[in-house]
Amino acid sequence: MTKKLATAQQRFLTDLFPGDDCLLSPEAMAAFSTDGSRLRSMPLAVVRPGNREQVEELLRWAQSERMPVYTRARGTGTVGNAVPVQPGVVVSMLRMNRILDVDPSDFVAEVEPGAVTADLQAAAAAKGMFYPPDPASSGFSTLGGNVATCAGGLRAVKYGVTRDYVLGLEAVLPGGRVLKTGGRTHKDVVGLDLTRLFAGSAGKLGIMTRLTLKLLPLPETTASLLAGFTTMRAAMDGAAAIFNAGILPAALEFMDSATINALRGAGSSPFSENTQAALLIQTDGSKQAVDLELQRLESALGNVRPESLLTGRGPDEKALWDVRRSISPASFNLRPDKMGEDIAVPRGQVAKAVEAVHEISVRLSLPIMCFGHLGDGNIHVNIMHNASWPEERENAHKAKEEVFALALSLGGTISGEHGTGLTKAAFVDGQLGPSEQDVMNGIKRVFDPHGIMNPGKGW
Amino acid sequence: MTKKLATAQQRFLTDLFPGDDCLLSPEAMAAFSTDGSRLRSMPLAVVRPGNREQVEELLRWAQSERMPVYTRARGTGTVGNAVPVQPGVVVSMLRMNRILDVDPSDFVAEVEPGAVTADLQAAAAAKGMFYPPDPASSGFSTLGGNVATCAGGLRAVKYGVTRDYVLGLEAVLPGGRVLKTGGRTHKDVVGLDLTRLFAGSAGKLGIMTRLTLKLLPLPETTASLLAGFTTMRAAMDGAAAIFNAGILPAALEFMDSATINALRGAGSSPFSENTQAALLIQTDGSKQAVDLELQRLESALGNVRPESLLTGRGPDEKALWDVRRSISPASFNLRPDKMGEDIAVPRGQVAKAVEAVHEISVRLSLPIMCFGHLGDGNIHVNIMHNASWPEERENAHKAKEEVFALALSLGGTISGEHGTGLTKAAFVDGQLGPSEQDVMNGIKRVFDPHGIMNPGKGW
Ligand SMILES: Cc1cc2nc3c(=O)[nH]c(=O)nc-3n(C[C@H](O)[C@H](O)[C@H](O)COP(=O)(O)OP(=O)(O)OC[C@H]3O[C@@H](n4cnc5c(N)ncnc54)[C@H](O)[C@@H]3O)c2cc1C
Ligand SMILES: Cc1cc2nc3c(=O)[nH]c(=O)nc-3n(C[C@H](O)[C@H](O)[C@H](O)COP(=O)(O)OP(=O)(O)OC[C@H]3O[C@@H](n4cnc5c(N)ncnc54)[C@H](O)[C@@H]3O)c2cc1C
Repeated sequence: MTKKLATAQQRFLTDLFPGDDCLLSPEAMAAFSTDGSRLRSMPLAVVRPGNREQVEELLRWAQSERMPVYTRARGTGTVGNAVPVQPGVVVSMLRMNRILDVDPSDFVAEVEPGAVTADLQAAAAAKGMFYPPDPASSGFSTLGGNVATCAGGLRAVKYGVTRDYVLGLEAVLPGGRVLKTGGRTHKDVVGLDLTRLFAGSAGKLGIMTRLTLKLLPLPETTASLLAGFTTMRAAMDGAAAIFNAGILPAALEFMDSATINALRGAGSSPFSENTQAALLIQTDGSKQAVDLELQRLESALGNVRPESLLTGRGPDEKALWDVRRSISPASFNLRPDKMGEDIAVPRGQVAKAVEAVHEISVRLSLPIMCFGHLGDGNIHVNIMHNASWPEERENAHKAKEEVFALALSLGGTISGEHGTGLTKAAFVDGQLGPSEQDVMNGIKRVFDPHGIMNPGKGW
Repeated sequence: MTKKLATAQQRFLTDLFPGDDCLLSPEAMAAFSTDGSRLRSMPLAVVRPGNREQVEELLRWAQSERMPVYTRARGTGTVGNAVPVQPGVVVSMLRMNRILDVDPSDFVAEVEPGAVTADLQAAAAAKGMFYPPDPASSGFSTLGGNVATCAGGLRAVKYGVTRDYVLGLEAVLPGGRVLKTGGRTHKDVVGLDLTRLFAGSAGKLGIMTRLTLKLLPLPETTASLLAGFTTMRAAMDGAAAIFNAGILPAALEFMDSATINALRGAGSSPFSENTQAALLIQTDGSKQAVDLELQRLESALGNVRPESLLTGRGPDEKALWDVRRSISPASFNLRPDKMGEDIAVPRGQVAKAVEAVHEISVRLSLPIMCFGHLGDGNIHVNIMHNASWPEERENAHKAKEEVFALALSLGGTISGEHGTGLTKAAFVDGQLGPSEQDVMNGIKRVFDPHGIMNPGKGW
């Protein structure tokens, strides 16, 4: 491993990426050394391609030089997948950010991977169309980052995740080969599904340079319900009642007692003192259909007697979601530091998982909040702690380990949406057996025989 | 290539598969030599495993013997993917057909791959749940066959295809290795997406022995509309009006003038003489929501002035779908033989594609019907001909080639749901470039280094 670029290497990069498209000074590169994980490692160089041809030349060179390549976009990933842990070149995709086409007859968008998710959503909405995947980061994360992490979001319970909206893509592989998969048709079964292999591949197979995405008709409106319950089990019964009524909500979020306590502490709880769990439910469709669905939701929930029930239509809807949005700021009233995990368990195991997390919380004397995408069984577990107290720091790590073991013991996964990267690499063996990892390693070698793409990360 | 099993090979198979679990006589094997393609090739043996352990032993042996393995289920595939074109062993999965679990708290089903699609749908419905993928073959095709072909169906426009409902699976690979992917969580982003790599892999990677499938809440009811139009363009305007109104129908089928003529000839057309194209639209949800949606559909279509508009609620709904179901029998009034292709094009190109097919039809003097899943741009092109007339047979082949060239020239695919198998193998190079095929071959070698799984088929 080199710790410095040779002069010829440096010349190659500055020739291919003139001006500030190639950054070499530590000051300029600092922002590219980290991501949402707050882990940090300085690269040898940062380059910012503006077109696919540059990416091809770069990956031809990188392969022959055996140079590690770390693709990144907005760096909002929370597990360190964009951190250049081995000396290598960071490739920022943010200069390839054009929305090339938003087509209301095909219901298809073509974008460069550096385009921001919310910008596509707005461009689609302006033409009466809808791009459903909505990670909470959609205001600043990119579509390329979303595909590479197979990002989920609030609407996954009804609309699925990013994977379900990628019709095709173009990627450059190590050595400079260009791969084109899929296309503008909504269905295609010719050959192996390379498109979906890139979804969630976290920069380990190649660099995506263009995406073809599927759009849906834009629902006319949305409305929401916020229901408080005296126990977590009652909230789960509420969710079951909704599904049993044949309703597939557009979002179905939950909050546990620790989360509600954090909201209370921050003065942003709309709940009574008895409320120990809550559901936040959204429905979408035509105005009349949404009114109908609200009535059906209310009657389904009525049978399980919620403590409180707030309805949000039109401008009032935002207030309900502001409660959800204030969870993250409120959490820091409990402790200054957060370990945010995102396990998923089979949907029927959510109550058991949350109870077990509470037991861990009590035993290790750490506030641990559980909330998130109940519809997918995807639980955000925020382990709050003060990292400057050695005991709390240690207990937070213990809690994290126990939470992963818990998820696996319930037939779940250590990551529902964020991936493994650096922060969970050590736990992957608990989930994936040797056969599975062998096959993944074999597939990786087909794309990247010398292991130059995002080396040093977990599966 | 052997043309006969050696005595030791035969002994191995009859030991592992006692009694009629191993078939060796041509009479017993005849039914296993063909599939929906009507192509035919006699295997060396047919075995019928009842459990995974037998499949493991079989694939350990097959790999060391370099014995071709042809997995099959109900043999309804239309492109020959289940036909043993090289001398080898056919593995029928129909004795592994148990529905192991249908769980209303997880919204998950676990099945053996030989379970019939409609049986799972019924078992799910009995518990208020819904398995959306609905190939027209669902009454007799298997879930394993559906996953292996990534089967689509009527409801794909709203609910997606089989791939979107596979949460995890178990497969045995050549050499006898067992691979387990995914699980009972609705979301999981740990590692490469091996689950979806099996979807559409057509028996080329391994033998699936267990599937974990996602279920949804069961919509309370459905209703349908059948709208006739004087031109294909008007029908397309009707479809656009529906999407522009923000409606995502549960099914959106179309029929062209040739299809309607065939129905007329068979006395099963409900349309007036002026009708040259039709849309068949389904909506689902609660009773009230469905009533509302019917009104919205009618008013959206009203602007494009359909020739006729029939509404089907409750028992009347079936009558509308009987029109769709009678297309296939009616087609044989035109000619005794059918070449059924299933191209897909970008949705906005459907009218252009159908017009171009009509031009081919006139030029080659063959009746060619276009109908199918408009919402996905997935067009069933039925090239009717009399195979015993050499000129018609030749023209039918010419038409098929032209139809594929047409699909590709419009940015489409030669298969939206049936795959390539034998009947389209020669056309795959027109769609997939050498880079893409190289990568697929490389991935195939990771699973199947000696190429024993379903050899002789196209990508
Ligand atoms: C406040 C906040 C909220 C979040 N909410 C959610 C949520 O609700 N759901 C969710 O799933 N995630 C969420 N995340 C995680 C993260 O934002 C998303 O995963 C997002 O998709 C990452 O996009 P990015 O542009 O920041 O990519 P980066 O973080 O820069 O990169 C992420 C990964 O993508 C790869 N990559 C990026 N571009 C390419 C490319 N063109 N070709 C190949 N590989 C590429 C990188 O190598 C890296 O492995 C959240 C993060 C934050 C900070
Ligand atoms: C009348 C009719 C209507 C149809 N309608 C549709 C439709 O609407 N949509 C659609 O997509 N298709 C349709 N098809 C095509 C076909 O029925 C489907 O593709 C179906 O999924 C095949 O299931 P099968 O059980 O018959 O599988 P088979 O035909 O026996 O096998 C199909 C493929 O799956 C593989 N396979 C089967 N089981 C396994 C296993 N356990 N492990 C690994 N590989 C396996 C086989 O090797 C083969 O490659 C239709 C066919 C007919 C005859």
